Amino acid sequence: MKVAIVMGSDSDLPVMQQAIDILKEFEIDVEVDIVSAHRTPEKLVDFSNNAHKRGISVIIAGAGGAAHLPGMVASMSPLPVIGVPVKSSNSIDGWDSILSILQMPGGVPVATVALNGAKNAGILAAQIIGATNSAVLDTIVAYKESLKTKVMEAAERVKTSQQ
Amino acid sequence: MKVAIVMGSDSDLPVMQQAIDILKEFEIDVEVDIVSAHRTPEKLVDFSNNAHKRGISVIIAGAGGAAHLPGMVASMSPLPVIGVPVKSSNSIDGWDSILSILQMPGGVPVATVALNGAKNAGILAAQIIGATNSAVLDTIVAYKESLKTKVMEAAERVKTSQQ
Amino acid sequence: MKVAIVMGSDSDLPVMQQAIDILKEFEIDVEVDIVSAHRTPEKLVDFSNNAHKRGISVIIAGAGGAAHLPGMVASMSPLPVIGVPVKSSNSIDGWDSILSILQMPGGVPVATVALNGAKNAGILAAQIIGATNSAVLDTIVAYKESLKTKVMEAAERVKTSQQ
Amino acid sequence: MKVAIVMGSDSDLPVMQQAIDILKEFEIDVEVDIVSAHRTPEKLVDFSNNAHKRGISVIIAGAGGAAHLPGMVASMSPLPVIGVPVKSSNSIDGWDSILSILQMPGGVPVATVALNGAKNAGILAAQIIGATNSAVLDTIVAYKESLKTKVMEAAERVKTSQQ
Amino acid sequence: MKVAIVMGSDSDLPVMQQAIDILKEFEIDVEVDIVSAHRTPEKLVDFSNNAHKRGISVIIAGAGGAAHLPGMVASMSPLPVIGVPVKSSNSIDGWDSILSILQMPGGVPVATVALNGAKNAGILAAQIIGATNSAVLDTIVAYKESLKTKVMEAAERVKTSQQ
Amino acid sequence: MKVAIVMGSDSDLPVMQQAIDILKEFEIDVEVDIVSAHRTPEKLVDFSNNAHKRGISVIIAGAGGAAHLPGMVASMSPLPVIGVPVKSSNSIDGWDSILSILQMPGGVPVATVALNGAKNAGILAAQIIGATNSAVLDTIVAYKESLKTKVMEAAERVKTSQQ
Amino acid sequence: MKVAIVMGSDSDLPVMQQAIDILKEFEIDVEVDIVSAHRTPEKLVDFSNNAHKRGISVIIAGAGGAAHLPGMVASMSPLPVIGVPVKSSNSIDGWDSILSILQMPGGVPVATVALNGAKNAGILAAQIIGATNSAVLDTIVAYKESLKTKVMEAAERVKTSQQ
Amino acid sequence: MKVAIVMGSDSDLPVMQQAIDILKEFEIDVEVDIVSAHRTPEKLVDFSNNAHKRGISVIIAGAGGAAHLPGMVASMSPLPVIGVPVKSSNSIDGWDSILSILQMPGGVPVATVALNGAKNAGILAAQIIGATNSAVLDTIVAYKESLKTKVMEAAERVKTSQQ
Repeated sequence: MKVAIVMGSDSDLPVMQQAIDILKEFEIDVEVDIVSAHRTPEKLVDFSNNAHKRGISVIIAGAGGAAHLPGMVASMSPLPVIGVPVKSSNSIDGWDSILSILQMPGGVPVATVALNGAKNAGILAAQIIGATNSAVLDTIVAYKESLKTKVMEAAERVKTSQQ
Repeated sequence: MKVAIVMGSDSDLPVMQQAIDILKEFEIDVEVDIVSAHRTPEKLVDFSNNAHKRGISVIIAGAGGAAHLPGMVASMSPLPVIGVPVKSSNSIDGWDSILSILQMPGGVPVATVALNGAKNAGILAAQIIGATNSAVLDTIVAYKESLKTKVMEAAERVKTSQQ
Repeated sequence: MKVAIVMGSDSDLPVMQQAIDILKEFEIDVEVDIVSAHRTPEKLVDFSNNAHKRGISVIIAGAGGAAHLPGMVASMSPLPVIGVPVKSSNSIDGWDSILSILQMPGGVPVATVALNGAKNAGILAAQIIGATNSAVLDTIVAYKESLKTKVMEAAERVKTSQQ
Repeated sequence: MKVAIVMGSDSDLPVMQQAIDILKEFEIDVEVDIVSAHRTPEKLVDFSNNAHKRGISVIIAGAGGAAHLPGMVASMSPLPVIGVPVKSSNSIDGWDSILSILQMPGGVPVATVALNGAKNAGILAAQIIGATNSAVLDTIVAYKESLKTKVMEAAERVKTSQQ
Repeated sequence: MKVAIVMGSDSDLPVMQQAIDILKEFEIDVEVDIVSAHRTPEKLVDFSNNAHKRGISVIIAGAGGAAHLPGMVASMSPLPVIGVPVKSSNSIDGWDSILSILQMPGGVPVATVALNGAKNAGILAAQIIGATNSAVLDTIVAYKESLKTKVMEAAERVKTSQQ
Repeated sequence: MKVAIVMGSDSDLPVMQQAIDILKEFEIDVEVDIVSAHRTPEKLVDFSNNAHKRGISVIIAGAGGAAHLPGMVASMSPLPVIGVPVKSSNSIDGWDSILSILQMPGGVPVATVALNGAKNAGILAAQIIGATNSAVLDTIVAYKESLKTKVMEAAERVKTSQQ
Repeated sequence: MKVAIVMGSDSDLPVMQQAIDILKEFEIDVEVDIVSAHRTPEKLVDFSNNAHKRGISVIIAGAGGAAHLPGMVASMSPLPVIGVPVKSSNSIDGWDSILSILQMPGGVPVATVALNGAKNAGILAAQIIGATNSAVLDTIVAYKESLKTKVMEAAERVKTSQQ
Repeated sequence: MKVAIVMGSDSDLPVMQQAIDILKEFEIDVEVDIVSAHRTPEKLVDFSNNAHKRGISVIIAGAGGAAHLPGMVASMSPLPVIGVPVKSSNSIDGWDSILSILQMPGGVPVATVALNGAKNAGILAAQIIGATNSAVLDTIVAYKESLKTKVMEAAERVKTSQQ
């Protein structure tokens, strides 16, 4: 019950940190590494082929521009791979990151989340674990309640301020 | 260990059938239903709130145009929700379906696959179950091997035809 | 003769305030609330099913990203629903907000205005009331005259400055 | 309580017919005309300035390409104007039609519906009348019920066919 | 031999000033005015119907967002109309301005220049006059020579700096 | 008083024929040629440098894909150049053709018309000649009247068919 | 002096055949293979690491959708890699193929050609060889002459047909 | 064994400097010049026709907006031409630059790199020379190793910081 979080460059860390933080909040173990599909292809192969043998249950992979990391990990690993399109400095408004991750061919899915949506990637990883782990499922249920509470409080503030 | 497949309209069935077929091939139980976010909102609420109580582990939701079904199911269910953007007749080249499903706000992820990528949605659902079920994980490993074999055979045909 | 203005998050308020302001200028009653399609789905159902029973005539709903609020309100309420695509921080240049609100399926319209066009949403709400209320119609006619006057004055300034 | 439906060209009629049909189904009076912003500008001015004086409550305007008709009608009429972007033969996948109608400046709203969404334009016109007319509101409520019933029946067929 | 420059709002003036400046540099008479298609439709009709009777040879019209001004002027005036898409604050990266001006239907052309390309609109207006006026044609020829000279000088600077 | 119509390939002729036809209808002389910016660059240079010396008043240039012909002609000729973006088979929905022609740098305008808008290019060429030729101006005025008549007749047919 | 042509699937062959044909016309040796980045990752690694050791000078790689093949080959091979974006059936109008190939990060270039531009990929491969091989350079010069001749002949036909 | 780097304007120099720098790092001779397709067409013709006669092996051409320089050079030179789309101030988010360079017609390839990807253009030029020059090939191999080392070091830093 461990989630591996990999990214193509340390410049992706500010975005990917949100996945790390929410998983820690959910008390799920994470490991974090930089694996560049284009600069460290051997490490990519090694990581992807072995993650499921090392006790990893879910992989989160973030990358920007022509973002090949999530799809390449998914091509080699049998685990569910969550892709985070990062709006990096070399990206065209994020469209390249999104399409490079989302539009995978038949047979090799990547579970894509919103542009810069690393927080949601972390929550989705927890939900995947929760699909067969009732303690984690309860954590998700409680988390959703907390979202509701925050919105209700904001609603009160807005209604008060309009009077 | 059951996957629920819902779609917004029976016109989505030809696309979504690919998810049903691959899951049956993997010998994973599926239930199929039509739940329209916009036309049967009460059924949407009922389905989303109760799926995890009925033994469903993963939900696949497909819809086109302003595709709200996957995100609305995800707003109420603690289960992992896989969204399939369908290029329906009322869609603008699929962009509306993709963006309506992918760009969910923080807190409510939808695991989005490629446009019309229902087959990949089915495989991803199996991978999610396989994350904690070694028999299903083995099925995925074998499936990936079969993809490789098909490509190797096609490569032979192409090389032969070029000589 | 009251307009309900709802939004998905208090971060939408700076944009949506323009709808509130113009309706107050037109002396039309407004109520303002936060209703998140994704975080408070029960409140969404309750609000949408009952607005027309509480004397609301028109609903304005603003949201960004995968913006499901206007369409989901429209799925349950028989009232005219005006959707404001908000260019929120998690939006891809506003395209996701626009397409998620505009591209509703047959049977469930949302009256969509321009990106961040909350002011126009307020005017449209007034026009809807004015369609059967001659006092409000007169207000609209006068408002249009005032727009013309402002442009004529600006034209004079520009012409003078060019001489 | 009459709806005027205008379009830029008779080539828009096949799309716009859906607005006519649904309004007739709702027993709401319609008048239909061709008004080209670019080819009959005098007729445009005359129509727009006088519609509200002739007992029209709502205007539906459809056009394609650089679609100026809905916005130009809205610039002169105090009535609510619903714009239908038509994917005409000279349109770039509909983007030009949508943006020309949707992105109106502050002060002059057009209630835009989906690409080719003339049926929804008709329903929205009925909802606008229903905002202050309880008989029409009841028609809308009943119509929404009929949508639900059709989806429920389709759901039964799909579930049966999967067994 | 006079060019009329009109724009939809005084907020377009900083962009449109470039057209004024280049025409003054070419010693061609200009008149400048604000004509809003959406806020002063009567002025629009009056201006468009009469420009060619007042000795205007070419019209330059700039506008942003759902930019109807150039096309509406072209619908009524027999003169060549040059459209300048302005990237105004309410524009979606300029796409709406461009498509609303460029995609005119058969019969009603607008000579569209680049986004914010008011300088080129001024040059084009001079070229149109130069098509039948050899003195102005000579001015254009000389202007093109001056562009070449500036590039040649910049090339020298760059080559020197690289040594 | 002659218009030169050039295109990058004979596959552009079906689109460009509309410019030829409307100019013949207006009794304006045309010459037609194929000049490929990419395949016959010397002919491009020769044509562009000399057109205004041979009595040509206006140039219409059509091309598709990375459409450099209109801009390259404009870089060398002092005459007004009208660009027609052609949706050729190697074009991405026409976007490449449009942007390659429209987005010219400061100093070198191309008067761009709609995608495949060769008819409008012909009309614009006539308007440019008409700017200083009252007989041609009268032709344009009459042409615009004929457009109006056709729309009025179509309006009658539509109104009759709805009764 | 050999060019390797690889593609992700045999469904890409009809497009990629144009690269094979033009290189054969230029009498340059080619080898053709299917290498799927997502289905045969080991073959991808083996091919990319060894191509330059086997006497390959240039690699052409074609793929569609989330097209990772060209970039992944380029990540491992020191040879120039030409990428052909293929508009496959699972592509969104080709945008995904183009952006996945073009937008490579700093350090790992892919020489991208037009959508479905396999013929140009073949010519570019020949030009790369011709950069240091004068016989091949002469072939390119002759080829460019032949393009010119074909356009000149088409120009004659068009001019004749217009008389 | 020399690379020519040309650009349309000195405003492109900050981007294009990256190509100069990496080639100098690789100890490959460069010459740098400004050649504007639109402002110095004669220089363009002269440069393109003669580069291969002056010992140039590869040409890198950068330009923004309607970027015709790379394609026009490629139309006249038999050498491989690398195009760098520059996101200049007059560009629409870079789309115009990319499409104007990438979408060349059959027969005239431009090796296009990422938006602002001048560094990759330099590396690609080196790879083209390395295709037939083993010393340069070795430089490329070593460069790729250095990329790997940098990523491995960054990975260590990230892993350490997470503990």
